Amino acid sequence: MTDKTQNAMWGGRFAAGPDAIMEAINASIGFDRRLFAQDIEGSRAHAAMLAATGIISDKDAEAIREGLLTVLSEIETGKFAFSTALEDIHMNVEARLKELIGEPAGRLHTARSRNDQVATDFRLWVRERCDEAVGQLSALCMALVGQAEAGAEWVMPGFTHLQTAQPVTWGHHMLAYVEMFARDIGRFRDARARMNECPLGAAALAGTSFPIDRHMTADALGFDRPMANSLDAVSDRDFALEFLAAASITAMHLSRFAEELVIWSSAQFRFVALSDRFSTGSSIMPQKKNPDAAELIRAKIGRIFGANVALMTVMKGLPLAYSKDMQEDKEQVFDAADNLTLALAAMEGMVRDMTANRDNLECAAASGFSTATDLADWLVRALGLPFREAHHVTGSLVGLAEKKGCDLPDLGLADMQAAHPDITDEVYSVLGVHNSVASRQSYGGTAPDQVRARIAEWKERLG
Amino acid sequence: MTDKTQNAMWGGRFAAGPDAIMEAINASIGFDRRLFAQDIEGSRAHAAMLAATGIISDKDAEAIREGLLTVLSEIETGKFAFSTALEDIHMNVEARLKELIGEPAGRLHTARSRNDQVATDFRLWVRERCDEAVGQLSALCMALVGQAEAGAEWVMPGFTHLQTAQPVTWGHHMLAYVEMFARDIGRFRDARARMNECPLGAAALAGTSFPIDRHMTADALGFDRPMANSLDAVSDRDFALEFLAAASITAMHLSRFAEELVIWSSAQFRFVALSDRFSTGSSIMPQKKNPDAAELIRAKIGRIFGANVALMTVMKGLPLAYSKDMQEDKEQVFDAADNLTLALAAMEGMVRDMTANRDNLECAAASGFSTATDLADWLVRALGLPFREAHHVTGSLVGLAEKKGCDLPDLGLADMQAAHPDITDEVYSVLGVHNSVASRQSYGGTAPDQVRARIAEWKERLG
Amino acid sequence: MTDKTQNAMWGGRFAAGPDAIMEAINASIGFDRRLFAQDIEGSRAHAAMLAATGIISDKDAEAIREGLLTVLSEIETGKFAFSTALEDIHMNVEARLKELIGEPAGRLHTARSRNDQVATDFRLWVRERCDEAVGQLSALCMALVGQAEAGAEWVMPGFTHLQTAQPVTWGHHMLAYVEMFARDIGRFRDARARMNECPLGAAALAGTSFPIDRHMTADALGFDRPMANSLDAVSDRDFALEFLAAASITAMHLSRFAEELVIWSSAQFRFVALSDRFSTGSSIMPQKKNPDAAELIRAKIGRIFGANVALMTVMKGLPLAYSKDMQEDKEQVFDAADNLTLALAAMEGMVRDMTANRDNLECAAASGFSTATDLADWLVRALGLPFREAHHVTGSLVGLAEKKGCDLPDLGLADMQAAHPDITDEVYSVLGVHNSVASRQSYGGTAPDQVRARIAEWKERLG
Amino acid sequence: MTDKTQNAMWGGRFAAGPDAIMEAINASIGFDRRLFAQDIEGSRAHAAMLAATGIISDKDAEAIREGLLTVLSEIETGKFAFSTALEDIHMNVEARLKELIGEPAGRLHTARSRNDQVATDFRLWVRERCDEAVGQLSALCMALVGQAEAGAEWVMPGFTHLQTAQPVTWGHHMLAYVEMFARDIGRFRDARARMNECPLGAAALAGTSFPIDRHMTADALGFDRPMANSLDAVSDRDFALEFLAAASITAMHLSRFAEELVIWSSAQFRFVALSDRFSTGSSIMPQKKNPDAAELIRAKIGRIFGANVALMTVMKGLPLAYSKDMQEDKEQVFDAADNLTLALAAMEGMVRDMTANRDNLECAAASGFSTATDLADWLVRALGLPFREAHHVTGSLVGLAEKKGCDLPDLGLADMQAAHPDITDEVYSVLGVHNSVASRQSYGGTAPDQVRARIAEWKERLG
Repeated sequence: MTDKTQNAMWGGRFAAGPDAIMEAINASIGFDRRLFAQDIEGSRAHAAMLAATGIISDKDAEAIREGLLTVLSEIETGKFAFSTALEDIHMNVEARLKELIGEPAGRLHTARSRNDQVATDFRLWVRERCDEAVGQLSALCMALVGQAEAGAEWVMPGFTHLQTAQPVTWGHHMLAYVEMFARDIGRFRDARARMNECPLGAAALAGTSFPIDRHMTADALGFDRPMANSLDAVSDRDFALEFLAAASITAMHLSRFAEELVIWSSAQFRFVALSDRFSTGSSIMPQKKNPDAAELIRAKIGRIFGANVALMTVMKGLPLAYSKDMQEDKEQVFDAADNLTLALAAMEGMVRDMTANRDNLECAAASGFSTATDLADWLVRALGLPFREAHHVTGSLVGLAEKKGCDLPDLGLADMQAAHPDITDEVYSVLGVHNSVASRQSYGGTAPDQVRARIAEWKERLG
Repeated sequence: MTDKTQNAMWGGRFAAGPDAIMEAINASIGFDRRLFAQDIEGSRAHAAMLAATGIISDKDAEAIREGLLTVLSEIETGKFAFSTALEDIHMNVEARLKELIGEPAGRLHTARSRNDQVATDFRLWVRERCDEAVGQLSALCMALVGQAEAGAEWVMPGFTHLQTAQPVTWGHHMLAYVEMFARDIGRFRDARARMNECPLGAAALAGTSFPIDRHMTADALGFDRPMANSLDAVSDRDFALEFLAAASITAMHLSRFAEELVIWSSAQFRFVALSDRFSTGSSIMPQKKNPDAAELIRAKIGRIFGANVALMTVMKGLPLAYSKDMQEDKEQVFDAADNLTLALAAMEGMVRDMTANRDNLECAAASGFSTATDLADWLVRALGLPFREAHHVTGSLVGLAEKKGCDLPDLGLADMQAAHPDITDEVYSVLGVHNSVASRQSYGGTAPDQVRARIAEWKERLG
Repeated sequence: MTDKTQNAMWGGRFAAGPDAIMEAINASIGFDRRLFAQDIEGSRAHAAMLAATGIISDKDAEAIREGLLTVLSEIETGKFAFSTALEDIHMNVEARLKELIGEPAGRLHTARSRNDQVATDFRLWVRERCDEAVGQLSALCMALVGQAEAGAEWVMPGFTHLQTAQPVTWGHHMLAYVEMFARDIGRFRDARARMNECPLGAAALAGTSFPIDRHMTADALGFDRPMANSLDAVSDRDFALEFLAAASITAMHLSRFAEELVIWSSAQFRFVALSDRFSTGSSIMPQKKNPDAAELIRAKIGRIFGANVALMTVMKGLPLAYSKDMQEDKEQVFDAADNLTLALAAMEGMVRDMTANRDNLECAAASGFSTATDLADWLVRALGLPFREAHHVTGSLVGLAEKKGCDLPDLGLADMQAAHPDITDEVYSVLGVHNSVASRQSYGGTAPDQVRARIAEWKERLG
Repeated sequence: MTDKTQNAMWGGRFAAGPDAIMEAINASIGFDRRLFAQDIEGSRAHAAMLAATGIISDKDAEAIREGLLTVLSEIETGKFAFSTALEDIHMNVEARLKELIGEPAGRLHTARSRNDQVATDFRLWVRERCDEAVGQLSALCMALVGQAEAGAEWVMPGFTHLQTAQPVTWGHHMLAYVEMFARDIGRFRDARARMNECPLGAAALAGTSFPIDRHMTADALGFDRPMANSLDAVSDRDFALEFLAAASITAMHLSRFAEELVIWSSAQFRFVALSDRFSTGSSIMPQKKNPDAAELIRAKIGRIFGANVALMTVMKGLPLAYSKDMQEDKEQVFDAADNLTLALAAMEGMVRDMTANRDNLECAAASGFSTATDLADWLVRALGLPFREAHHVTGSLVGLAEKKGCDLPDLGLADMQAAHPDITDEVYSVLGVHNSVASRQSYGGTAPDQVRARIAEWKERLG
């Protein structure tokens, strides 16, 4: 995105001449410099292939490959002087290479063009961010599994409509997010596998008449194979869009958990305490702890999905092959990837540091007739009532308890039997919240045993 | 979308009382009736499992399963009277079942809730649309392969920036879209595999205390396994979002091809003629043939990606588990899926019917010094010039041709040698457009041989 | 959105022939029939003008105008048979007119085309929905003012980060939403004023050689003036986009208030009770009242802003003048407008029926040292301490209170003076929540007096 | 957006400790430093008001106001050292002020908070960008009026569906965009008027007990009035969203014109030549001129509307008052505003430099029976045929011409009369493209006279 320096130039905006305007809108070096490592890696692989196929000499290739390492080192150590006049990272690197090694530098660009070069660089970059997202998501899953293990049997309210519905376990709730983030891992992996084809050698758009070996460069750069159509190779940005789509769904999951953390941190809920490190305080209200990190994570879906919208809009209706519109791809992906990284790191940290307030959770779980469903199910199971009739009996008992100002377990057996004569005192065994959650032994249910079984599986899968 | 009947109710909008407003905003039967087949399929599987596990009797299960077939048949034949008072498809079906078989109908809802029921129904529906998209995309790819085969060696301009860059082959251009649509197939397949887990048995959100067998229902409905967390099972809409994301990228590809067809159909290009069946005419200008279908296909990305934005926005920041907001998922997915189906069908039809204007394509390909790159490459390859110097020589020759008002192949050898003395008349072999495309033998390049090799592969893969 | 009938046709989707596909993608009568009243109104104005300028005879005009009234009545009473073969509402109406009045019907289309006709119809429709939105927003504002008046001095927590920050008044909080919705009214009014120019007479795109009087038709249809450029008139959809942008911001405001209502309805907050009419219950948990309407309103931003994204995407990069892509405009706007209407009606009803729990609000407001800022401000105002030093003293007193397990008003004067010797017992006057809110007399502040002054102004403005 | 320095920090991303992560996600100084001028302007107005109302001494106010000018000058001259530890621009400025003037600096923050401070700063910034957009749009309109004046009577094809429909004038086409951009001006003006209320004095969220004068600060900062509700004042971001909505529609208009320029620059159309300054060439194909600037402008709708989506998503469902999520507002608006400025400047420059190819335009306009509508209209006007019959006669004549391989004006009178006996040779007067456009004298039509009348009006309005 346009940085401050550039804006300064626009101080007297209307005065800026056409040349300055064109340079400002056209040059990409301000952002594509982030691709330097990928650009150099790609060029080194290309040079080696040119030599192996006899298109350039081994000596030239060696000079090029060594020179590129020097350039890499100069950039990494901050000694490289980027030039806007040279427009982009490719020209900046090649110009410096020429200074360093002279004439052979001019042979590097044989049998390729900037179109396939930038497609390769950017693909390498996005591929790396997929791997990083997978790594961070795994770490976040492990942090959640840690929370789940600590509280596999702690009881809390299970909400629908933000109203207490049934008791569930803390561990079960944590594992719900593990499921979501694990699906995210799957999406990043699928995206990575699909994008792992090499555009290099597509040249401008038609391929080349030089006897290049595209499989060799593809191998050298860790791709599964070369892309099979040169027009597609230079005009495809699916890999970026699929990365953004996966990142957007991840950000949506993060926003849901962050919303819960904000609500759970309120004075009215007090379900969790976030650590000081992921909160901010107030200088005069020492008890106040604002869940800033959670709020910022909740917001990140905005810019990440906004980037998805932006690039999808750019690509809409573009004829083949390369159009300059596609230069707008990088800043969106860079920004989305950076913010995804940040949000995942912050969420993992928050989860690791977070303390659940076990008493408040259990107290909230026990209120509001949360075990009414258990009563109804018992009537079906023990007395053989049809489900709809069991519901009716339960309703009348809850109504009675409400009138008496007590909860279900506080009703006497006589009261129970007035509602249905076959009720026995076995019924009390299902009315406590601990009994309730323990009974939900169906696969994937909230029972601590089920939770522990899932934890064991996750540890194996993520370990 | 709200239909006319419903709107009629709002004729005197401010007068509508609270009850009418609540019914209008709350009821889903107006759209979720489309899930009737999935709902009945799910209920039949559930009933069979309840009997197999001894939760209900075999007799009751049989009555339920038969009764449901009757309901199915009534709906399919248009005899079913849907009721808005019954809110949704689940209640409509169950109420009719009760009329048909009496008391046992009340046992069907044992050990499940509408939360896991709708999640299952909708997942089955989306899964089916993934399969359909794969089928349609394959058919479209075959239509494109057909075009590619017919014109594997026809020459046309390869554009960048909508400016002629280099000659390419018609077959190569068609195959570029095959690559795109084949990636789309991959995305729908991955989405399908990821969504193919069964929510049924998650009950309201916590699982159930009945001894159900979730693997049995999962198997019966063609799922790979039951979902592993009941909270996640009822609050997950990733499957819908991933479908929409895949559909959006497909729609983007369609918009690019449709844009080309609109431009190619213009009087200025005349690259293709669309069939009458996919165009509309003008009653007074018989020569006019508007590419309406192409324009409408180009536009479909709007509502398909709009649906993606809509559902992502709905899901942002929703706490677990089920919130009523999620009821907004279906209409978006229904509309996107229907329009994707329509757009793919129309595009396939258009491609099958389309006629390329071979002469115009070749004529356009040959203009504009489109083989300048071939000349430069020849200088590198044959004379060993460094790439950058070869470019310089080529530039001076193009400049000369332009001054003379001719194209590159029209320059005499003397002129050529004035630019570089080592040039021989072998150079002319690379300057024709047919020679140019034939020379691009690099893997995935535009040479007819390469195109034919790819066609053979696609036929095998798609066949 | 594609309706069921249409989908039925796609049952065997791959089998549908090209003609069926083209009809399905091309015909608009399935949705543009909603424009019948506007279409007929526009045609009647056009006919009157054609007669007034002598282009057709008065007799023909009279026949046309009367015939159109008959068509209108037929449609309104459900007697009209719409035909898909006639494609759109314009052709359906004209065909029926021909049946009714014969030859003069053929003169109606003189000096216009479907391009300016549909632009006029749609603009009239959107203009009407702007007026309706203004009416509904005003009614909602009045409902909020009613709530504000009832509780002008009720105290509740003012939140930042969903953490209690300072006490505010219920009336003040309600009026914050009045400000938002009043800005929405302004946006709809501005949009209406900008769109209130008449496209009729632009003909296909170039204007016409008939001596029409565009000011006359513009006047007759309530437009301020004719549009000044015929190309723009037929290709502009700004009016629809501006409507959607205004509707989206309104929907965002609704989502914020709806979120508060959902949180306030939770067992943990219990700030408000929603009426039964805008909630749904549970058959077995009588105390449970799900805020379904609030959740659905919260979700409406999805489809409304989704429609905005959809139409913006459609319009991106369309060359002048009319392209068929633009036919995708109507369904998006229809759906967004219907859902905005619904959401505003539901919100108004909910606000009118809602009961604030005054005790819970006040109790929550008084906890958490919510008047610490008042103490600090008093130190500045009464003792002349610099603001930053006052903050420091306050912090130490809050810390002391926290250690003692009491709130600020419970600290003795000696404790106060230990923190700063000049503190007098006047300090206690600022520590109660009622004193706190009463003191915030700055313009627009939360003091009941300020709230009442604003209420009086709003009643005047909205009345 | 995250800049490179920040990313560097994430080199070893998983290693970054919680504190580094929190700082990275929380600090805003990296971007909100752009608000320095507005921040200082607001603080100077606030200090003057505090003195005028007796809340601080005149001497302190004077010291503060002078000190702030020093800070301003330090920042403007690049001497200011921004500190990330101080989080944001407000704290950075205040800390430096304290160094410069000591104790009185501590009194500046009396009766305000960072919540109303940042709302004021950002509103001032957005207001300024509205003014700038109006200025740039006016300049662009003048450039288009210049083109229109030069070619008021040049004839070109008027397209629908990118097919020639009727001849129009170049001037008319240019003025269509003037209409669009002038509506954009209206939207920015309306947005500016609506946002021109001052949040300052709302304090944290409740207003203040200090006897401030909000009207005085509002006046000093050029606002029309103070905002009337302090909760709304600190939680409203409508002004940013309305700016983004207006910018998005502007960007849509730019994308349409840019698309035309790209198509018109193709070898197949050659309707315009863009200047070298707004194109890029190819080193070896001297005739190639890529319309890079047009393509980049076409793409800008992506990031501008993407920013709109991003901020709308952030604001969805946020409870009152301030939440940290809202910190995500600035980067989106900064980036969108910068890119809008750039796109408008580039478009204005391109329009000023652009050369229409008058011959190609006219030649294209004359082909394709483009005056068939003129013939039909003449039959109605001169012979009194009903419109639908006139169409039929015209159709037969076009068919005849097509068969003869000629255009309409080339048909003999006998041929004409065979189609309808009453045709006279007056008919030829309407068949030439110049006659055709000259005849379209309806208000807003394409006739050169109409175009010149509109030009005169625009010059007056924009002058």
